Amino acid sequence: MVSKIRFGNPVPTGAVVNGTANVNGEANLRYFEKTEQGFRFRMGKKDAVYGLGEANRGINKRGYQYVSYCTDDPNHTEEKLSLYGAHNFIVIDGACTFGVFIDNPGRVTFDIGYEKMDELNIIPEYEDLDFYIIEGDGIKDIVRQFRTLIGQSYIPPRWAFGYQQCRWSYMDADAVWEVVDGYENCGIPLSAVYLDIDYMESYKDFTINEERFPDFGNFVKEMREKNIHLVPIIDAGVKMEEGYDVYEEGVAKGYFVKDKEGRDYVTAVWPGLTHFPDFLNSEARRWFGLKYKALTDKGIDGFWNDMNEPAIFYTERGIDEVKELLKPEAGRKEDISTDKLMELKWKLNELANNDSDYKAMYHNMDGQLVNHDRVHNLYGYNMTKAAAEGLEELRPGERTLLFSRSSYIGMHRYGGIWMGDNQAWWSHILLNLKMLPSLNMCGFLYTGADIGGFGSNTTRELLLRWLALGVFTPLMRNHAALGTRLQECFRFEHTEDFKSVISCRYRLLPYLYSEYLKSVYENEMMFRPLAFDYSGDEIAGNVEDQLMLGNEVMIAPVYTQNAAGRYVYLPEPMTMIVMHENGEEEKVMEKGVHFVEMPLNRVVFFIKEDAKIPVVSTEYGRKVCNDTTEGIADSEMVWLGNKNKKYQMYTDNGHSKNKKDDVSVMEL
Amino acid sequence: MVSKIRFGNPVPTGAVVNGTANVNGEANLRYFEKTEQGFRFRMGKKDAVYGLGEANRGINKRGYQYVSYCTDDPNHTEEKLSLYGAHNFIVIDGACTFGVFIDNPGRVTFDIGYEKMDELNIIPEYEDLDFYIIEGDGIKDIVRQFRTLIGQSYIPPRWAFGYQQCRWSYMDADAVWEVVDGYENCGIPLSAVYLDIDYMESYKDFTINEERFPDFGNFVKEMREKNIHLVPIIDAGVKMEEGYDVYEEGVAKGYFVKDKEGRDYVTAVWPGLTHFPDFLNSEARRWFGLKYKALTDKGIDGFWNDMNEPAIFYTERGIDEVKELLKPEAGRKEDISTDKLMELKWKLNELANNDSDYKAMYHNMDGQLVNHDRVHNLYGYNMTKAAAEGLEELRPGERTLLFSRSSYIGMHRYGGIWMGDNQAWWSHILLNLKMLPSLNMCGFLYTGADIGGFGSNTTRELLLRWLALGVFTPLMRNHAALGTRLQECFRFEHTEDFKSVISCRYRLLPYLYSEYLKSVYENEMMFRPLAFDYSGDEIAGNVEDQLMLGNEVMIAPVYTQNAAGRYVYLPEPMTMIVMHENGEEEKVMEKGVHFVEMPLNRVVFFIKEDAKIPVVSTEYGRKVCNDTTEGIADSEMVWLGNKNKKYQMYTDNGHSKNKKDDVSVMEL
Repeated sequence: MVSKIRFGNPVPTGAVVNGTANVNGEANLRYFEKTEQGFRFRMGKKDAVYGLGEANRGINKRGYQYVSYCTDDPNHTEEKLSLYGAHNFIVIDGACTFGVFIDNPGRVTFDIGYEKMDELNIIPEYEDLDFYIIEGDGIKDIVRQFRTLIGQSYIPPRWAFGYQQCRWSYMDADAVWEVVDGYENCGIPLSAVYLDIDYMESYKDFTINEERFPDFGNFVKEMREKNIHLVPIIDAGVKMEEGYDVYEEGVAKGYFVKDKEGRDYVTAVWPGLTHFPDFLNSEARRWFGLKYKALTDKGIDGFWNDMNEPAIFYTERGIDEVKELLKPEAGRKEDISTDKLMELKWKLNELANNDSDYKAMYHNMDGQLVNHDRVHNLYGYNMTKAAAEGLEELRPGERTLLFSRSSYIGMHRYGGIWMGDNQAWWSHILLNLKMLPSLNMCGFLYTGADIGGFGSNTTRELLLRWLALGVFTPLMRNHAALGTRLQECFRFEHTEDFKSVISCRYRLLPYLYSEYLKSVYENEMMFRPLAFDYSGDEIAGNVEDQLMLGNEVMIAPVYTQNAAGRYVYLPEPMTMIVMHENGEEEKVMEKGVHFVEMPLNRVVFFIKEDAKIPVVSTEYGRKVCNDTTEGIADSEMVWLGNKNKKYQMYTDNGHSKNKKDDVSVMEL
Repeated sequence: MVSKIRFGNPVPTGAVVNGTANVNGEANLRYFEKTEQGFRFRMGKKDAVYGLGEANRGINKRGYQYVSYCTDDPNHTEEKLSLYGAHNFIVIDGACTFGVFIDNPGRVTFDIGYEKMDELNIIPEYEDLDFYIIEGDGIKDIVRQFRTLIGQSYIPPRWAFGYQQCRWSYMDADAVWEVVDGYENCGIPLSAVYLDIDYMESYKDFTINEERFPDFGNFVKEMREKNIHLVPIIDAGVKMEEGYDVYEEGVAKGYFVKDKEGRDYVTAVWPGLTHFPDFLNSEARRWFGLKYKALTDKGIDGFWNDMNEPAIFYTERGIDEVKELLKPEAGRKEDISTDKLMELKWKLNELANNDSDYKAMYHNMDGQLVNHDRVHNLYGYNMTKAAAEGLEELRPGERTLLFSRSSYIGMHRYGGIWMGDNQAWWSHILLNLKMLPSLNMCGFLYTGADIGGFGSNTTRELLLRWLALGVFTPLMRNHAALGTRLQECFRFEHTEDFKSVISCRYRLLPYLYSEYLKSVYENEMMFRPLAFDYSGDEIAGNVEDQLMLGNEVMIAPVYTQNAAGRYVYLPEPMTMIVMHENGEEEKVMEKGVHFVEMPLNRVVFFIKEDAKIPVVSTEYGRKVCNDTTEGIADSEMVWLGNKNKKYQMYTDNGHSKNKKDDVSVMEL
């Protein structure tokens, strides 16, 4: 049962599509009491709190605070409060079990036992919001109801379930060829290569640097002949440059975000000075969405939207403040005092992603003037909505790969997300795992982290271990930042180990794709904490480094250096699968804690006693490696696990935008 | 057996005191080959590499690279190469087992399977060094031989094993009283309160701000009457200020570090412009060491030496470079271009701890002019040597608490170290644990981390879990940075949980103090990885989150949020002790993996089947809480574990500088 309590006059966010009537009045908050700052729930000693989508720290969010305010922070260590997305849905599980969704796109703080150990305080900066309470028959039912409320999740084309390679940046076509050849020479399958910001002409959206990527359309075609999809980046900021059509049209039509005086707001991002399209305006959205045509016309069928928190390097406002600091010093500049220089340093470091800039920006929400800070978390969402709606016009009925860095609940209907700019840290493998279920709770199913780590230098072992988790995540992309160690798999010693691990992804595709569709159409979570499935089991409730996948599988990746294996808790008897390119060993194991050996070149997972899963037979493994588009014929599949059991298999043609009825559901 | 191969003309470091003859010639490198850059060993597939003292990442250092170059980096995330200390001792354990010590105080890189998975490359920046190879009967024997080589470790006074509280800073005497009263009111024992930089007058070493700490001598006395020791900080940099005796004497006597032209080198640290004492000069060392008299005269008997990597905020050289950047811009400053401002930002951020500054500093090593960069890692070591030798003159025969932030092997004879400026991260509990054995290998026994975390805001749960590890570390100090959440235990809800955990420290003192003395006099490691004790056991070899303590105990702290307990691996049958203030439960457990419940207010550890340990009986627990000075009478002790077994108990009077013969060793 869903209750909705409205406070003030909230901005429509589009998060909820299957609405419910308001039941206003604080009395209806039930579990919560209204406080001066927001809303308080008194937690029981053993209550756990799940959710918050893309957020830091544990699966159980209790014991810390989190701030929903989309933030570009590539150095997200444990104490950071905000990441790239804002997903205000939680489930409290304990004496009472219920869900809460705060539909408010401004800053919202969730203090979950941080200030006071037994208090959950939800503190919105602006108190115009819809407060949803969802009750039901346990956590899974509550999540299902919430997912029904917010609408069906995005489905990418089937090829986007292949292994993908990215780097900031492959500087020219030759660099892309080097990657494609590198993988091919090692026999490691590859389905897509990404083009980061340097493919553009001066970082201008919807342009191509013709010098570095001559005859782009033909390049795309040649890649497709090798079953490689090219996926270019699109940034939020539009370069201010005379003669650049997107800039000039945007100015002429008034489609950019404004300052208080109604002038186009100037920020600096990669291209230098830019304007931000006003994605909260439906006309601007349609205009920008159709711009993707420049690339779909060349054969592009996948995009990633970036820098759309929006990230800001600096603004005129900030620079003016810095210059102000330099002003009082008369005479020659070299006479500036050291104290003043230290102040200058502080000021310069505060230029990026500065709150004052967000508070100085204004949107035209179809006639209504709205300060950006109040709707900050809708920006990336609506950029991706713009793209999705444009792409539907440009490629009607066809799925396009589309995902975003920033997001809000609602965006899950238009595209996926990646988990932001992470680091080549072992702890970020675990953070990757922990975000999967909380994102699934919020409808984000097509997701994954930058495998190997975006920032910092990776190691061979870290990359291999991360890949062994990545084989299960719908988005499986290796990505690294400028200036870091090259981390394409073929750069390392003994590439056969990488081949073995990545090939498992392709062998697992029938199962993973079926489970993805099932999760979309049945509003299920593809990944769940063990606590969701084994609610009476205290050890299971404690496990934050294993996940249930579908109704059949449990995963337990290694996330420490030099480990021969790891502890795995089996909440019931299961069959351990030790998979490689050319087969797998199966071993039945008892309920309980086990130390399980996990070689670097194997993918280890567990199948429940009463379940089986479909995988590609090793005989046909190579065939599908470079062609994820087509489904797998029955004859090319084998079953792992308990062959006497039934499996409900979801399939489709892999590229059309289907209705639920078009999907094949077979009991096999 | 120890072999020493000399290369070039190394600077004497004083690391080795029980020397050995040179066996020059590259042929004697045996396991290693000389390469263009340094030294290479080809590791076997399963070789593990232990050591490097205060270093990042795992207990087994394989799979990453580490740079010995003392560095002030409070944000030490996983990718960081250098921390505060430089400890060039490793043991390779596998097909062959042997130790290597690189006695070279300049920058030394250890690439342990990072570039090439099976190569260990040791790359010194300056190739004047002594290369020691230590062979023996297994890891523990090799470590013992190395410890014999480098001399007996420092022993603090017994009171320094009590629980201690620090913050940057308690701004005045009232703030200290608030802390002492806060603990007393909660009944939580406390043995010391630290004075961070603000107790000084304008951050000038050996001064006291009389306004904030009036009648300091009496204040120290009043605290001692409450069994509280005050421990002031001493920083490396000496403020340039006319009339300040330390500055004026240092200039007059030529005791400061020089620039290339022989002028006193100017750096900026907390006091603003400073000079660094030339601790590598024996006269300067004695001069500085005797300055501690200003505080010992007031009754102070403990010090911590800080900022002695040395940390540098900026130098004239750096500031000149920044100003240079501002120069070419003629006219009014506000016309400076944004590009220039971004360059300025970069330059300003590069001011601190800049390599160019270290390369521009010179020491007078008793007549020999030496560039700082070549001997960088000796600086903090010799500051602490200066203090220790001064304190021996000032308090002859008496132990003084003394520890340092920066260190090099050799300094372990003069004082302890804390593990540097860490963060309130769960991962830093584990890093704390992992550094213990590697520091013990290098002779550093009196050590511990900033419990609760120095940077970032702690949480109640994090602090409690960290304390449950801290009860075992010789230095048990809660410390937090300016601007973070107050983290004295009495600030949190349900202080009885803190009382329960910290009281266990006092109950454990007879055992911990005995084991400390044993480790010092027998050149043993107080903390060892399980791999050192159970070399045939593959699971034990994999364990990086448990440690052996002495020959009797195994510890396994919780280091994750919201955990009801954790997995513990028992390499043999053991008795689990669940300890609290007023007693303990014992439970015999089988060899193998267990999920062990660990309540937040308990200290859980394990005693080997054939061992017992002495602890204070609960009856007398309160008595010793505020008096760690005296030993515990036999009648006040009880035994935990197997009472039929013998324990070798080391005791002394707790405050005199004893010879080994003065120590009581009893078989009980």
